[in-house]
Amino acid sequence: MREVAVLGIGQTRVEEHWDKSLRVLAGEAVLAALQDAGIPGVEGIFVGNMMSGSANHQQHLGTYIADWVGLRYTETFKIEAACASGSSAFRTALMAVASGELDTAVAVGVEKMTDSPAGEITAQLATAADADWEVDQGLSFVAINALVMRRYIHEYKWEHDHFAPFSINAHANAVHNPFARFQEAISEADYHRSPMIAEPINLLDASPMGDGAAAAVVVPFEHLHRANGHPIIRVAGSAAAIDTIAVHSRREPLWLRAAELSSKLAYAQAKVGPDDIDIFELHDAFTIMATLSLEACGFAERGQGPRLALDGEIRPNGRIPIATRGGLKARGHPVGATGMYQIIEVVQQLRHEAGETQVDGARIGMAQNIGGSGSNIYTHILRSD
Amino acid sequence: MREVAVLGIGQTRVEEHWDKSLRVLAGEAVLAALQDAGIPGVEGIFVGNMMSGSANHQQHLGTYIADWVGLRYTETFKIEAACASGSSAFRTALMAVASGELDTAVAVGVEKMTDSPAGEITAQLATAADADWEVDQGLSFVAINALVMRRYIHEYKWEHDHFAPFSINAHANAVHNPFARFQEAISEADYHRSPMIAEPINLLDASPMGDGAAAAVVVPFEHLHRANGHPIIRVAGSAAAIDTIAVHSRREPLWLRAAELSSKLAYAQAKVGPDDIDIFELHDAFTIMATLSLEACGFAERGQGPRLALDGEIRPNGRIPIATRGGLKARGHPVGATGMYQIIEVVQQLRHEAGETQVDGARIGMAQNIGGSGSNIYTHILRSD
Repeated sequence: MREVAVLGIGQTRVEEHWDKSLRVLAGEAVLAALQDAGIPGVEGIFVGNMMSGSANHQQHLGTYIADWVGLRYTETFKIEAACASGSSAFRTALMAVASGELDTAVAVGVEKMTDSPAGEITAQLATAADADWEVDQGLSFVAINALVMRRYIHEYKWEHDHFAPFSINAHANAVHNPFARFQEAISEADYHRSPMIAEPINLLDASPMGDGAAAAVVVPFEHLHRANGHPIIRVAGSAAAIDTIAVHSRREPLWLRAAELSSKLAYAQAKVGPDDIDIFELHDAFTIMATLSLEACGFAERGQGPRLALDGEIRPNGRIPIATRGGLKARGHPVGATGMYQIIEVVQQLRHEAGETQVDGARIGMAQNIGGSGSNIYTHILRSD
Repeated sequence: MREVAVLGIGQTRVEEHWDKSLRVLAGEAVLAALQDAGIPGVEGIFVGNMMSGSANHQQHLGTYIADWVGLRYTETFKIEAACASGSSAFRTALMAVASGELDTAVAVGVEKMTDSPAGEITAQLATAADADWEVDQGLSFVAINALVMRRYIHEYKWEHDHFAPFSINAHANAVHNPFARFQEAISEADYHRSPMIAEPINLLDASPMGDGAAAAVVVPFEHLHRANGHPIIRVAGSAAAIDTIAVHSRREPLWLRAAELSSKLAYAQAKVGPDDIDIFELHDAFTIMATLSLEACGFAERGQGPRLALDGEIRPNGRIPIATRGGLKARGHPVGATGMYQIIEVVQQLRHEAGETQVDGARIGMAQNIGGSGSNIYTHILRSD
């Protein structure tokens, strides 16, 4: 298997892009990534997206987007793994290049959610859960996470306010990211008085939807260290693992077994451990998911995730900086695009292009993208030389 | 890159499976393929499907199906490329194994269309076309193909009845396939008096929708010749190419350039030419597509596809047997599953397990799956030793 590297990245701001169609959004990210890579085209384009068939009445996104950006006579398809669609597209591009089938590929995640009424989008997001055994019982996606958070608070004796530092850190970092949906700081008081959505999850525990696209160009790693003026970032680990689709089928509903498995695989491939990770872009769709992810990946003891946040260790100058560009919470969570935003944010850190929230000396970064309620989890480890 | 082989196949009959959910259907095909392969599980499961988000209110099919069949802690996602979703899932499984990321994988195509009203399904199928520039103008999928067929008849001076042998051959072969939706022969008179859908396409030019699932287990080729009592079938060529999404953007609307490109790539990989192909499972969604595919892949001169059919050369004992198990026309066209049905039908022929419609001495077979109106085309060449 050939080693693979990221040669270029591109993104649009996450916001309400009512003036841009799905292809215009995705096209902007793809063309920016090609320009950043300094190459005119690629042999394959892999699109991560969850809801275009229902939210935008457009499927066949591969051809639709490739045609738009002028990448004709290439290879393309769409990949869907709920909120992990972005990173599954990235992994598909890696496998296409690693296998030798293609020599250049772009992975792009795109989602356009804000054209639809919120109720419709909530119903469409619920298609990531089990239609028969969860959704038909009246569970929405936030409700599933609320049940998990409530149990966690009970089991490990935390208070709701102890989760505030996750959201405060994310928003503080997003202030400096021009591509983030919410470039504004929040305080402990803001978090405390934030309206409840599904108890105990309040508005500031939850990531916002949005429209956005993010893309990366991948090529075989040729032992070059710079290309087009940037350091080349190697993909040192790439792994995926699933759990049961429904949380209620799990022996330990408070443990992200798929995160544990996929991070262990990725650590082994990259020959590193949690202590070597300089920055971790995790899937903070809800504060409870940030906590569970930190624990499953070996950064905190079981039940002790909030401690790390309360101690300030998740900030850019802490032991394990997370959400350094705002995370899902403040950069925004356009579901099929999120996994690709995480990848390119790690690349920005490893290139030392992360501005005000640059993590000093960052050399090894990890991105973890979660589909469903912890049911399909991708972990990627990237490194600069 | 490692060479890959098909170790096991499984399928359900194409019909109206109102009593089976999406996971039950897909599960039957996957479990049958694992049993046929003689192995208890795999490391990855790649699901080809187009419309589950809208037609079945269920996304995240990878985890949903893997969980159901007990393949936990594996890797999985869904792949969508309109009517080519099945073969793009097969190609993803190939790349996962060829790259060394996984050692065993199953590709499964599944679609459940008949629970929805026909009008809704027609609208959902149209999401494979360009929403802005085709669908909003009132074009349905059959209407796009009707425009192409009308132009072809005019340009090359054929009559509508000259297309009858494509449908007659497909139905004659499906009589002997217990998995086919329509196991009944049709006559020239039946074709002639068949009701018009979108002139000049009549009901017997068009393939029927249906519910179905088909799966194949792929593994690295280890120079074994038999496994679990079957010959091992090698994947000798695998290629994909796209054209513009809209037919109106093409310089030559009567030429399937993506079929030409992907078949040429596959021929080169397999080191064969059209004369070496013993059986060709092509994408006869409409009789006009069968014609165009035969021409683009080098089996007939430009504009002369119907000649091959009229001369009987497409029958099981002809020069280039097509639709040997019924094709899309009579086996049925559950869109996201179709590409996988084609693959396993080629495997059946190369194993010499195709019964009454077995092609004598078949050793090299080709499958071609088309997404959209000729806009995303996958060609696979399989061979037995």
